[in-house]
Amino acid sequence: MDQVKFYLDEKDMPKKWYNIAADLPTPMLPPLTPDGQIVRPEMLEAVFPKNLIEQEMSTKRWIDIPEEVRQIFYRWRPSPLRRAVYLEKFLNTPAKIFYKDESVSPAGSHKTNSSVPQAWYNKQFGIKRLTTETGAGQWGTALSFACHIIGLECKVFMVRVSFDQKPMRKTMMGLWGAECIASPSNETRAGRDILAEMPDTPGSLGIAISEAVEAAVTDKTGRTRYALGSVLNHVLLHQTIIGLEAQKQLKKAGIKKPDIVIGCAGGGSNFAGIAFPFTLDKINGAKIEIIPVESAGCPKMTKGLFAYDHGDVAGMTPLLPMHTLGSQFIPPAIHAGGLRYHGMAPLVSQAIVEGLMTPRAVDQLSSYEAAIIWARTEGFVIAPETSNAVACVIDEAKKAKREGKEKVILFNLSGHGLLDLAGYDKYLNGKLENSKVPHDEIARSLAKVQKTYAAASRKTGKW
Amino acid sequence: MDQVKFYLDEKDMPKKWYNIAADLPTPMLPPLTPDGQIVRPEMLEAVFPKNLIEQEMSTKRWIDIPEEVRQIFYRWRPSPLRRAVYLEKFLNTPAKIFYKDESVSPAGSHKTNSSVPQAWYNKQFGIKRLTTETGAGQWGTALSFACHIIGLECKVFMVRVSFDQKPMRKTMMGLWGAECIASPSNETRAGRDILAEMPDTPGSLGIAISEAVEAAVTDKTGRTRYALGSVLNHVLLHQTIIGLEAQKQLKKAGIKKPDIVIGCAGGGSNFAGIAFPFTLDKINGAKIEIIPVESAGCPKMTKGLFAYDHGDVAGMTPLLPMHTLGSQFIPPAIHAGGLRYHGMAPLVSQAIVEGLMTPRAVDQLSSYEAAIIWARTEGFVIAPETSNAVACVIDEAKKAKREGKEKVILFNLSGHGLLDLAGYDKYLNGKLENSKVPHDEIARSLAKVQKTYAAASRKTGKW
Repeated sequence: MDQVKFYLDEKDMPKKWYNIAADLPTPMLPPLTPDGQIVRPEMLEAVFPKNLIEQEMSTKRWIDIPEEVRQIFYRWRPSPLRRAVYLEKFLNTPAKIFYKDESVSPAGSHKTNSSVPQAWYNKQFGIKRLTTETGAGQWGTALSFACHIIGLECKVFMVRVSFDQKPMRKTMMGLWGAECIASPSNETRAGRDILAEMPDTPGSLGIAISEAVEAAVTDKTGRTRYALGSVLNHVLLHQTIIGLEAQKQLKKAGIKKPDIVIGCAGGGSNFAGIAFPFTLDKINGAKIEIIPVESAGCPKMTKGLFAYDHGDVAGMTPLLPMHTLGSQFIPPAIHAGGLRYHGMAPLVSQAIVEGLMTPRAVDQLSSYEAAIIWARTEGFVIAPETSNAVACVIDEAKKAKREGKEKVILFNLSGHGLLDLAGYDKYLNGKLENSKVPHDEIARSLAKVQKTYAAASRKTGKW
Repeated sequence: MDQVKFYLDEKDMPKKWYNIAADLPTPMLPPLTPDGQIVRPEMLEAVFPKNLIEQEMSTKRWIDIPEEVRQIFYRWRPSPLRRAVYLEKFLNTPAKIFYKDESVSPAGSHKTNSSVPQAWYNKQFGIKRLTTETGAGQWGTALSFACHIIGLECKVFMVRVSFDQKPMRKTMMGLWGAECIASPSNETRAGRDILAEMPDTPGSLGIAISEAVEAAVTDKTGRTRYALGSVLNHVLLHQTIIGLEAQKQLKKAGIKKPDIVIGCAGGGSNFAGIAFPFTLDKINGAKIEIIPVESAGCPKMTKGLFAYDHGDVAGMTPLLPMHTLGSQFIPPAIHAGGLRYHGMAPLVSQAIVEGLMTPRAVDQLSSYEAAIIWARTEGFVIAPETSNAVACVIDEAKKAKREGKEKVILFNLSGHGLLDLAGYDKYLNGKLENSKVPHDEIARSLAKVQKTYAAASRKTGKW
């Protein structure tokens, strides 16, 4: 029987992160203010510490991972590369399916790869407290863990629908001393405004971001900042440790390069983590198919616009160049809470525009079907977000069988689903549906984006 | 910084289990029928398949692990040996704390180490369906997984209090196609009798075992058998893969032998798994302190009798020589459901009598305090059962500090606590108490044991 698990020694863990901004064929479009001016670093200083703003704007190819951050990572990193031999056998496919297992972190997902350095850089800068949003709860849990280990306070605004679906997430954050409240809340102006208009809203990441940013910038001590779990350049940068480890481990497995790289994509960070190091290989000539997988319930990459839009509902963030369904769009209450975000990270969006990656959408029932196949072959319970990637992996493995090709498929298992069993329960009892794609709402929301975009563009005569 | 994780290649996974029955200084006392006769193998054939009965009675030192079982194990075995450097630093102890991480299995605990071979031997013997009991849900989940992978049906009787505390365990078993119902139930005579007498009982492992055995032996097809998750010799045998791996991994970490070996002990299987291979070293002269840790809420080793007693409430199992609080004893509803069993495995009990191990009891609040320290240093959420072991580890590490000795402590992290967060929630909100040790009930229950014991002994003039 072929080897299943490929480990890497702690001493071989990458010492640098990879910054794809250095290598994209055309330079990145800058973030803009609502009146179309390029955002200057100092404009972000109420929100982020200076050292992270520098990282956000950096075009340096390799950026050092601080030694203290590495020592915290050793709890779970390097994470295992595994081969899904049991799934391969079940599918009777000639494809070889490898995956990075990011579920092994303390918080149960890849999110700790960025929460730890973000907390660390904030601490270095003298910050005492972080605020953040969380969808499914993975990011909030990861930041709670990191803040406890590094010595910061932490406050998490959790999207209402996930807060209700996954009550144990709050307990887990509390284990690390963090405070978690449902969003929209009455604690912020943004939250109160939304509640006045839509008292029964399931909430959205866009709303929770508005609340968390507001809570940070209105703190009178000046020692509170905001942390984001995806979308931004520095977050994607931190996640590249996944793909960099995978490259070393594939070598150990005797694989020169994967043919296909797959990751689910909510804001883009777990996908970028596995994909960017291989995107560099692709830019350098390697033939690799790279697939970000979104939920059909929130299809920004396959049905959205590439345009300047806000990262949040209240318009507190700069305008970012991205695939978006409109910052006002509130996605249906799919169980993959981490995929319920209206936009896609600018770095991923631009790589799509450049033709380096080809997005795909998966509907909710197909994702659960894939998750069940996974649990019944590989044996592990995966997060509903991850299930979307697995559905795509299974499709590609079947295609390889039809074509009779021994393709190497690599994907990122972003997290376990042990706190998401309520969704499995509904699926197993036939109570789950495909969320209907809300075409009309998307169209209305995109019309608004175009107006914002046109306004910014009129003011500057550019973009 | 010292290395944290010590892996073993799949090819180096042990090929044989270790059977301590071959090495205990005095031979094991045999199981007895209620009228004091030695149980003959054929008397067990309605309950277990012949091949497992042979294993149960074997005194062969090394027993082969079937190749198919090994191939299923590769999903998670060899499991990592880890060093708790972050806890060591927090405690500022000279002790080196190592642990086997059995939480990495599909079901989240060590239980899969026995559920897979048990299902496999049953399948070999032509069995179609297994029944079992489960306390906290770990064993039921593990057997559900194994039955699905190997192709058997599975029915689980889950102790009522855990069924209510941990509803997602049922979902997880359902993922693998198993049926899970609360015990006592109306499906068996044993269950109906108990419900008639105590309609509000929280249930117990002893009751659930009676129900599961009854459901197996009354099945008309003759193709149903019963599987037990702990206590019996063959279950403990299967778990020794943990300690055998640990011995190889400690060598990799440059450690000749541990000074102290610790495991929590409900029925004794996870403890035996880590401890028995080192007990052999101790029998051969090595100086090792070996500590099985029970819950003060169910203190069979520290407050019970060593006597012949039934393994279940209804008296359907043979009399086993063990430390017991009496098979009629219903332990208080502590969260560590896996430790709520009235008896201790005969092999462990005899090793205690021989002076090879020294049990210790931990109260509920101390176990949660230890679990919180663990989560805030090492970063992982552990099962309430495991927390009892960790409380003992912390005590020993503090003692090593007081003595200024660089001791090596090894323990078994039997499972994660991601499906046990409700207990953490109660603890963090000050709603958890130490369960009062029910001295009077224990005394009453033990008086009954002595009667049974005396009756059996009168009839045979022995034991």
